Amino acid sequence: MQIQFLGTGAGMPSKARNTSAIALKLLDEIGAVWLFDCGEATQHQILHTNLKPRKIEKIFITHLHGDHIFGLPGFLSSRSFLGGDEPLTIFGPKGLEDFVRQALTISGTHLTYELEFREIQEGIIFEDQNFTVKCQKLKHVVPCYGYRIEQKDLPGKLDIDEARKQGVPFGPLLGKLKAGEDVVLDNGQVVKSASLLSESQKGWIVTILGDTKYCQQSIDLSENADVLIHEATFDRGTEKLAAQYGHSTNVEAATVAKQANVKYLLMNHISARFMKKDVELLESDARLVFENSKIVSDFSLFQWRNNQIILEEDLNVD
Amino acid sequence: MQIQFLGTGAGMPSKARNTSAIALKLLDEIGAVWLFDCGEATQHQILHTNLKPRKIEKIFITHLHGDHIFGLPGFLSSRSFLGGDEPLTIFGPKGLEDFVRQALTISGTHLTYELEFREIQEGIIFEDQNFTVKCQKLKHVVPCYGYRIEQKDLPGKLDIDEARKQGVPFGPLLGKLKAGEDVVLDNGQVVKSASLLSESQKGWIVTILGDTKYCQQSIDLSENADVLIHEATFDRGTEKLAAQYGHSTNVEAATVAKQANVKYLLMNHISARFMKKDVELLESDARLVFENSKIVSDFSLFQWRNNQIILEEDLNVD
Repeated sequence: MQIQFLGTGAGMPSKARNTSAIALKLLDEIGAVWLFDCGEATQHQILHTNLKPRKIEKIFITHLHGDHIFGLPGFLSSRSFLGGDEPLTIFGPKGLEDFVRQALTISGTHLTYELEFREIQEGIIFEDQNFTVKCQKLKHVVPCYGYRIEQKDLPGKLDIDEARKQGVPFGPLLGKLKAGEDVVLDNGQVVKSASLLSESQKGWIVTILGDTKYCQQSIDLSENADVLIHEATFDRGTEKLAAQYGHSTNVEAATVAKQANVKYLLMNHISARFMKKDVELLESDARLVFENSKIVSDFSLFQWRNNQIILEEDLNVD
Repeated sequence: MQIQFLGTGAGMPSKARNTSAIALKLLDEIGAVWLFDCGEATQHQILHTNLKPRKIEKIFITHLHGDHIFGLPGFLSSRSFLGGDEPLTIFGPKGLEDFVRQALTISGTHLTYELEFREIQEGIIFEDQNFTVKCQKLKHVVPCYGYRIEQKDLPGKLDIDEARKQGVPFGPLLGKLKAGEDVVLDNGQVVKSASLLSESQKGWIVTILGDTKYCQQSIDLSENADVLIHEATFDRGTEKLAAQYGHSTNVEAATVAKQANVKYLLMNHISARFMKKDVELLESDARLVFENSKIVSDFSLFQWRNNQIILEEDLNVD
């Protein structure tokens, strides 16, 4: 699993940060990419990465503010132009489908693939054999949701060579051992499944929040997550103003991370008024509350490896 | 008058060329800028120029394809964010207002300025003491218009020093001379207006076409224009294919320029499939038909001076 930030700014694009979009790259897991929010020019940002639009099979929208959705019509249209024919599902709040369908109709855009919309409600909105996605309403000035993506545990692997050595014949007994059952061989020997199965691998949990002020819902949705992506539109000391605009400070983001007992906090939705030095301060201030805090940048790419989230070198393939 | 190209690509953004937008800078004339088309990320392009969104007082849309309009909601919203309070008028085909109003409503965008829409028909769509704007339907796969902007002639200037020398007193006689009337002084001396007035200065004519195949309407709309901006989505030899898609080749653009007797041809809407060498060929091929032909790039800035259109150095203020 990899996480690549495509837009980490707040409200409006600036030269340094585009409006919101995050790619959750599940190429190793399922050969697909999920996109979270799609601000204007997300497709332009993608041009500077190795992401393939046709690989994006699901888009999750947190809320309907322009800096989170105005890139959708263009992205969908270009995905089609580029020959994408794999179906695409968009999850988001009420109103999203109307916006997208009208933009496509008025612009005479005919997609080469099937486009499905799922209007979200709180709770589990998607589940298959690999993942569960849950969403939760947050506290913003318009209805806004956070998403919790849980990878299901990966089953342990059977050591077939060792099983053969212990006299287990090819056939259904191997299947039973793999499923966790002990078996009795023809000669009466008992073979224990546990002695042949490696430990099952714990799935990861990533929580991606939309715009929100500090709230209990953020903590609930990110409980024990490996990675929490939380906005930090305001800085320490401006909590009142932040709440008034339905936003959080860096310190509040770190507080949520701490209270929810997450492993890593990645902060996005950074205002253009913060210069390089301010951003460093945003990060160090947050670390006083929660050590594993990081302010991310456009194109920041993180890799999940050995239960750690590691920042790869900023990718900006030109 | 200056013309700055903000997006010169066709259909989709590429790393080199954004989707369509052209700024007609009328800062010397009326202290304002007019925008022609507004593809996605036009506001992002503007960040790399010295254009001020609040100075853009009129937007003219040629047609409703996404690569010409998907930047509108974001641009309008940011113009507001940046404190623009001057009214803005958008001219364009039927359907445009629905698209923009719905995008603004669904995204909860409240503009700080008055936004007016004018649904265009063929003919004169705007006229004041400085300019006339006429539009004409072209031949594309959806209704698409070209715009002809005519600056009104600037009256000659009265040489007041010389008038005083010839004995004309301050007062209404000066006004009469300025208006072109000869006057008789108290001493019976006749003062000729023509001897004191510089020649009136001819206004310029700029024709900006939307997407179109080769057609008579393009020639009519650009007759005797100083500058013609014409698409060149296809190259020499692919005229049939171009027409099928409602587009033109470079050679057809040059042919229109020649037949309409324009002074300069600037070609935009260049497909991303053309590499640097191909673009050079697009230009040189066009010049075989019409000498003053040029393929433009994103951020190309042209200055109208002494009846010539001069390319300033590419502006990319970072």
